[in-house]
Amino acid sequence: MPDTATTATRSKPAPANQQLANQRVAWFNGKIMPESEVRISFRDRGVKYGDGAFDTTRTFNGRIFRLKDHIDRWYRTLKYLRFDPGVSPAEMMRITEDVLARNIHLLDKDDDYWVSQRITRGAEGIEYLPEAPNVIVECLPLPLKARATQFRDGIKVLTPSVRRAPPEVISPRAKTHNYLNMIVAEQEVKSIDPTAWAVLLDVNGNLAEGIGANIFLVRDGQLFTPRLNYVLAGISRQTVIELARAAGIVVNETDIDLYDAYTADEAFLTSTSLCICPVRSINGTGFDKGGLPGKVTKRLTDAYIKLVDCDFVAQHLRRLPGKSV
Amino acid sequence: MPDTATTATRSKPAPANQQLANQRVAWFNGKIMPESEVRISFRDRGVKYGDGAFDTTRTFNGRIFRLKDHIDRWYRTLKYLRFDPGVSPAEMMRITEDVLARNIHLLDKDDDYWVSQRITRGAEGIEYLPEAPNVIVECLPLPLKARATQFRDGIKVLTPSVRRAPPEVISPRAKTHNYLNMIVAEQEVKSIDPTAWAVLLDVNGNLAEGIGANIFLVRDGQLFTPRLNYVLAGISRQTVIELARAAGIVVNETDIDLYDAYTADEAFLTSTSLCICPVRSINGTGFDKGGLPGKVTKRLTDAYIKLVDCDFVAQHLRRLPGKSV
Amino acid sequence: MPDTATTATRSKPAPANQQLANQRVAWFNGKIMPESEVRISFRDRGVKYGDGAFDTTRTFNGRIFRLKDHIDRWYRTLKYLRFDPGVSPAEMMRITEDVLARNIHLLDKDDDYWVSQRITRGAEGIEYLPEAPNVIVECLPLPLKARATQFRDGIKVLTPSVRRAPPEVISPRAKTHNYLNMIVAEQEVKSIDPTAWAVLLDVNGNLAEGIGANIFLVRDGQLFTPRLNYVLAGISRQTVIELARAAGIVVNETDIDLYDAYTADEAFLTSTSLCICPVRSINGTGFDKGGLPGKVTKRLTDAYIKLVDCDFVAQHLRRLPGKSV
Amino acid sequence: MPDTATTATRSKPAPANQQLANQRVAWFNGKIMPESEVRISFRDRGVKYGDGAFDTTRTFNGRIFRLKDHIDRWYRTLKYLRFDPGVSPAEMMRITEDVLARNIHLLDKDDDYWVSQRITRGAEGIEYLPEAPNVIVECLPLPLKARATQFRDGIKVLTPSVRRAPPEVISPRAKTHNYLNMIVAEQEVKSIDPTAWAVLLDVNGNLAEGIGANIFLVRDGQLFTPRLNYVLAGISRQTVIELARAAGIVVNETDIDLYDAYTADEAFLTSTSLCICPVRSINGTGFDKGGLPGKVTKRLTDAYIKLVDCDFVAQHLRRLPGKSV
Amino acid sequence: MPDTATTATRSKPAPANQQLANQRVAWFNGKIMPESEVRISFRDRGVKYGDGAFDTTRTFNGRIFRLKDHIDRWYRTLKYLRFDPGVSPAEMMRITEDVLARNIHLLDKDDDYWVSQRITRGAEGIEYLPEAPNVIVECLPLPLKARATQFRDGIKVLTPSVRRAPPEVISPRAKTHNYLNMIVAEQEVKSIDPTAWAVLLDVNGNLAEGIGANIFLVRDGQLFTPRLNYVLAGISRQTVIELARAAGIVVNETDIDLYDAYTADEAFLTSTSLCICPVRSINGTGFDKGGLPGKVTKRLTDAYIKLVDCDFVAQHLRRLPGKSV
Amino acid sequence: MPDTATTATRSKPAPANQQLANQRVAWFNGKIMPESEVRISFRDRGVKYGDGAFDTTRTFNGRIFRLKDHIDRWYRTLKYLRFDPGVSPAEMMRITEDVLARNIHLLDKDDDYWVSQRITRGAEGIEYLPEAPNVIVECLPLPLKARATQFRDGIKVLTPSVRRAPPEVISPRAKTHNYLNMIVAEQEVKSIDPTAWAVLLDVNGNLAEGIGANIFLVRDGQLFTPRLNYVLAGISRQTVIELARAAGIVVNETDIDLYDAYTADEAFLTSTSLCICPVRSINGTGFDKGGLPGKVTKRLTDAYIKLVDCDFVAQHLRRLPGKSV
Repeated sequence: MPDTATTATRSKPAPANQQLANQRVAWFNGKIMPESEVRISFRDRGVKYGDGAFDTTRTFNGRIFRLKDHIDRWYRTLKYLRFDPGVSPAEMMRITEDVLARNIHLLDKDDDYWVSQRITRGAEGIEYLPEAPNVIVECLPLPLKARATQFRDGIKVLTPSVRRAPPEVISPRAKTHNYLNMIVAEQEVKSIDPTAWAVLLDVNGNLAEGIGANIFLVRDGQLFTPRLNYVLAGISRQTVIELARAAGIVVNETDIDLYDAYTADEAFLTSTSLCICPVRSINGTGFDKGGLPGKVTKRLTDAYIKLVDCDFVAQHLRRLPGKSV
Repeated sequence: MPDTATTATRSKPAPANQQLANQRVAWFNGKIMPESEVRISFRDRGVKYGDGAFDTTRTFNGRIFRLKDHIDRWYRTLKYLRFDPGVSPAEMMRITEDVLARNIHLLDKDDDYWVSQRITRGAEGIEYLPEAPNVIVECLPLPLKARATQFRDGIKVLTPSVRRAPPEVISPRAKTHNYLNMIVAEQEVKSIDPTAWAVLLDVNGNLAEGIGANIFLVRDGQLFTPRLNYVLAGISRQTVIELARAAGIVVNETDIDLYDAYTADEAFLTSTSLCICPVRSINGTGFDKGGLPGKVTKRLTDAYIKLVDCDFVAQHLRRLPGKSV
Repeated sequence: MPDTATTATRSKPAPANQQLANQRVAWFNGKIMPESEVRISFRDRGVKYGDGAFDTTRTFNGRIFRLKDHIDRWYRTLKYLRFDPGVSPAEMMRITEDVLARNIHLLDKDDDYWVSQRITRGAEGIEYLPEAPNVIVECLPLPLKARATQFRDGIKVLTPSVRRAPPEVISPRAKTHNYLNMIVAEQEVKSIDPTAWAVLLDVNGNLAEGIGANIFLVRDGQLFTPRLNYVLAGISRQTVIELARAAGIVVNETDIDLYDAYTADEAFLTSTSLCICPVRSINGTGFDKGGLPGKVTKRLTDAYIKLVDCDFVAQHLRRLPGKSV
Repeated sequence: MPDTATTATRSKPAPANQQLANQRVAWFNGKIMPESEVRISFRDRGVKYGDGAFDTTRTFNGRIFRLKDHIDRWYRTLKYLRFDPGVSPAEMMRITEDVLARNIHLLDKDDDYWVSQRITRGAEGIEYLPEAPNVIVECLPLPLKARATQFRDGIKVLTPSVRRAPPEVISPRAKTHNYLNMIVAEQEVKSIDPTAWAVLLDVNGNLAEGIGANIFLVRDGQLFTPRLNYVLAGISRQTVIELARAAGIVVNETDIDLYDAYTADEAFLTSTSLCICPVRSINGTGFDKGGLPGKVTKRLTDAYIKLVDCDFVAQHLRRLPGKSV
Repeated sequence: MPDTATTATRSKPAPANQQLANQRVAWFNGKIMPESEVRISFRDRGVKYGDGAFDTTRTFNGRIFRLKDHIDRWYRTLKYLRFDPGVSPAEMMRITEDVLARNIHLLDKDDDYWVSQRITRGAEGIEYLPEAPNVIVECLPLPLKARATQFRDGIKVLTPSVRRAPPEVISPRAKTHNYLNMIVAEQEVKSIDPTAWAVLLDVNGNLAEGIGANIFLVRDGQLFTPRLNYVLAGISRQTVIELARAAGIVVNETDIDLYDAYTADEAFLTSTSLCICPVRSINGTGFDKGGLPGKVTKRLTDAYIKLVDCDFVAQHLRRLPGKSV
Repeated sequence: MPDTATTATRSKPAPANQQLANQRVAWFNGKIMPESEVRISFRDRGVKYGDGAFDTTRTFNGRIFRLKDHIDRWYRTLKYLRFDPGVSPAEMMRITEDVLARNIHLLDKDDDYWVSQRITRGAEGIEYLPEAPNVIVECLPLPLKARATQFRDGIKVLTPSVRRAPPEVISPRAKTHNYLNMIVAEQEVKSIDPTAWAVLLDVNGNLAEGIGANIFLVRDGQLFTPRLNYVLAGISRQTVIELARAAGIVVNETDIDLYDAYTADEAFLTSTSLCICPVRSINGTGFDKGGLPGKVTKRLTDAYIKLVDCDFVAQHLRRLPGKSV
């Protein structure tokens, strides 16, 4: 189960030897600086080619969730893409916690952060640029308000005609800075219904994943989620699987097609920021007959909330239009 | 045949109303500024997702080649990816020529430029950033010296195990900022032989393309090149096809596999910067028995040189180690 | 070019030896009977398995269009599916014309008919049913009114995630009674936007076809339409190709992907009933900048109208809400 | 394990409030009527497009087997195809049992019924037809005699060149009225050997299924059957899996290819009507060295017979030519 | 059109400096020896791995047909598989003609030879074997008698479930000693009908080729044959294409599926030995309605006979049971 | 776990009724003869088509390993390819042991044998050859010296662009005499780096196998190896799985892609001769940070050594250049 590395909370004292900034700061190639000053030359391969990689966790009440798992996954992506960040995983964990500590005071009450590590390849043969990767550690408030209605109404999922890139093209398990495959898929969906979310099929026509989100179906009390071939190995996905198994719920990691999707009792997405969010319909076939979230989704949501000690659902719902935070 | 829009040459006066900079300048969202100051926030989707697109032509003796064709192709990519650069194609042509004019004096004698248009999607919901694309027009001296040996010895081509992304994932005809598919392919090849170039196969096992390069085979006096399904519609590729047809050489745009590759008489790559460069071998099977370039490659090279009025081969070879430019 | 078999027009005398019915009649296994009485046992394989085949042409001002081509295609489908209708193609042409003659008086002014041949496999081992196919020849007024807005506004095309069945499953060239592949695709699309039409991609991610409709793109004055691998060999598709070539327009039957679709200048669908109908957008990317229909679409539409001597566009537009026929 | 809903047996009194018909009756859109009068307009999408769905169970000694499982599966297909039958599953179970009760007296001694639910989409825009689905509940004597030799000699299986439709085309898990994919496959096989049965491969070249039949292999005492990707989730398949596991036999749901098929010790098909029937050979490679059925097949057959309390093997064999029933 | 290298005929004097053997002789690594003594160690990779390649032409009345084309194709296969036979193509032509001259006197009247070049890789690290390829040139009387009924009745073609190996596995254009893909396909077919011939589909479900045979369809007076992606570039195939074009018959090299096959008017196979042989049926769908061969097949056969100056049809038919040669 | 059939050791007396030969002997169609005299006519389908099959085990200190498993697998391949060797498995085991006994005295101290069964299809219609398969049982000293550096340094693995043949072409589970698919893959790799070994990807882009070798990855203490779809069911692979499970190590038989490969902690190959040999790198990504073999590889190697009672690692390392055996 998740590592329990808890860190800087709002009450925690800021790093001793400096002033707290009144804007977000980031770690950029070894220095702390205002985030807004962290900019990359367009000559950097990270800009020209999306030649970069990242990982992201979130805080719950200011505490980072499963940081080690995210850092480990980032280093796996780095190894796959042959990046050398120049810092060790342990050091990267300390840097990440430090960055959070320097920004935690800027969070509004009840808000939380995404906390991310990023790398770009750097430039080649440019006279005014060092030939070295750029490494960034940064945080950003979660878009809780923008997603409040998703938690109230459930997510409308559409499956675009664009397919998720298969492993022989690039492994979907790597968390890279190349998202155009999913962006063209999402544009297809958003052009039809701006409130819908895209979940792509894989090249065999089975459900794969959305941008940064894994999908689960519930049928007859069991969970079904795509096996790790055409999807990212989401940490939230893994958390849900662990919570389900702990609760005695059977989890099937397998190929699931649109028949499975349309005949499921419930569906939900998982992601670092959403944790668990109910799906209202897939291609118009609804799961909301008995109200949302469904029974199993609710049970797992409760377990997730308990695990992270933060009611992320309420956190979202408090931001619904008409509510005051 | 190619549009003949010729522009700023070295002798041409620089734009009247300003000083010539002593460093390269670029057009960035409407302003001319030193290129080294053109930087993009890491919050830009162009950095986070490679959510960008570009096109590139080159100069010959300082004259831009087929600029209209490149601009048109860039706008097709923009339409595919749903970018709005905010300027018309005609305006973009003028800007491009202006950028070249402002930088032409910085070119060493016998050097030439890549001249490129780029766009990134911009940021979303970041308090200190406008939600608008970033558009850049810039130029960069061609890496003539680095490629001189390729022109002398021919390019060693290896076919990696990674496959070129198929159209159902993302159209290979779009020239985007997402290159990781080709980068992981190239890393595979470079890890084995740092001097080799990768030409990827498509998902059916036929030859596709390399990073920014199309491939041609010659057999029995005819040309064979992959049809436009898994490859970029290269302008240089198109130029070669037109030159070949004008010379009475049959051109086959078709599926070609490793049998075709190994049994070809000659092979060459085309790209904006290389124009035509002979291939010395594919997976170790050589085309250099009769010396490089082969007869048909030579004939097309000569026609290309005549067309652009610039001996790009000599331009490269003058930069071989031991030669003085 | 099309066979010119013209037949029963409104003014033509009805078959001599019988009363004209005041309801549509059909030919059913050798007998003329009221269409409403033509019913099939649910034990027929045509019901249980969709084990049937059909072909459909339409009339223009009461004259059948390219009947021989449709009949020939029907017999090809029958041969593929191993049906024996028990009548010869020539006889089937006569029957078809006879059925039309018996129904032509029921057409409203300015209306036209679909005229179709159908077969189902019959039952097996059912005590009260003969073990023989059921053959039907019938006509039905075209849904001109329902499609009037399509001709005014153009068709909104969406590409669903469901793929067109490939030849190794069942040949898309056969016109069968098995449409669920396209129906589930269409349901996906209609669930999102009830006014949109589905055009499926093939298993390689290239454009294929919609229900009963072929797609054409126009770019730089040339036509592009999928080659006959994953699509029906539409007679209207063929008519357009012939008209285009006669007009000196280059026609490319080739693989076309979403990049081609989004970057086209114009697009249109062809079908027996629509003939040519402009496409307004594909996945939200519009072709209506310069008004609909585009220039080439208009030119081909005019040629089509001239060929069939019937302004099918006006025929539709007269039925727009607020217009009186 | 199977639901044990047992119903109308031969001895059971017929529904009180009516005469027993002397021909089979069916439930058709709410009414009981002679089956031979249940006919569908050719304008119904169920005829034109095979736009329908069904499920079928069978009786053993007049008792329905696992009716609830079949009804549930039917409703899943309905949901996938977006049909609304207008009756609830519970009601459909009652209707089914009622239809059986009204027909049970017509069964010959030792015969049994298929009992089926069917739906077709209905017509659209036809003046004399309601726009509503047609729903039918019906029963039909099993073709025991026709299959008696299969039980004596085993089934000769051939694998045709046609592939089973993959999920991206239409989910093989849905039990629809679109069977042409399997019919063209079967015609290929029957044209060669009229006594052979087709078992299609999936698009990857692994064994999938036959028309209405799942396949099992036995090797080294274990069962192997295709996983639920390219095959219907057969209730008989599920019954065999449950019986095997109860008997301590390992069951592998996995990809199996022709090597597995040819090197198996035994093979059998399962279907609603057959239950379990031994396979004599696959593409001429025989499993009959030690006599048919093989040891494991026999053991599962015995368990199946015990479960349903009906010796379906004897039931078939009694109908062999020369035997009197 | 074909090279016209004609060589040793029956009347031609045998090589001067030696006795004519009374058994067939072959050229084996530089020596002429009785064919029956040409044996290969089982340690040779040619035996262990099928690591070898060949090409075969035939004689007509003792004259070799298009030898240069076959030799050239053999050297292409050698280059693809990286074999070095140690002799030049010109030398190999002379050797081949010499081998024929030494064997021509053994031919029965009206018989003809296959004449073949073969290579195997040799052994590695075996103390008693040289590490060098084995090269063989040999001839063998054509199996005219065994195929006489094919010419009388036409060939029954079946399409097995096994698919032709795609180029990403091994190029079908290479003529190698690895035939198991086609052998398992043929066994599947022969197990059902020993008189039938297998024509495999490619991995997309289109017609590919049989063992050593290309397939042509005739429809509406045009020829259709698979494009050179999944099939050997047969010299006889090429000869037929050239003859057809010379006769004004349109030839389409394209993807053709079972729908095309079943709806063709005629079909025939081509191979070195058969030249052209009519197909009677494909999967039971016959082309013999109007008698065999069909009109276009007959026309091409006549042209082929004229070209090679040998009536290969009569040559076969004379060997029918009951005929005396 | 492995059968323990141990046989002729060096000390064991030779078969009584004959002289021991001073060269290796083999069993060839029922006779013992000097291996060097076992030769096959080039007319044998085994030469022309690679129409043959084999299996191979090895000795450890002169004792055969898991002979029954190998013989059983050979007979499965024979059944798949429809060979009849004319001897029973039990007899084949006795023959194999006899062949070993007759050759064991020729082994150098510390050497071991491959012991193999082979079959070729025989010739057809050749006047001087029987139409019967050729069956060979033979042994060959292991190439221990040639592989010594692999055990010291680990194997450099490269993934070629050629894909492993899929089951629809020919089942990779059959151990045949058709190796060209793997040979062209290996040539691709060896042309780049003669010391590297090829491990092919399957047609989906997942790791498959090398020539005669299975691959395992180690990550987080668990084993990952391709499932039995695109790979041979190696006996050594099976042995490792059994040893791992016995040691409490989790074994995952699943799809693994290049991301898994590059991010693994360790990797090793298994084969009959190698048993277990560490992989040093895959496409240049190394596993040697902590020295080779890695921890888990070492543990399994030790268990393997204990099982076979032979330190195969030391056996190899003793043959390193500079070591004396």
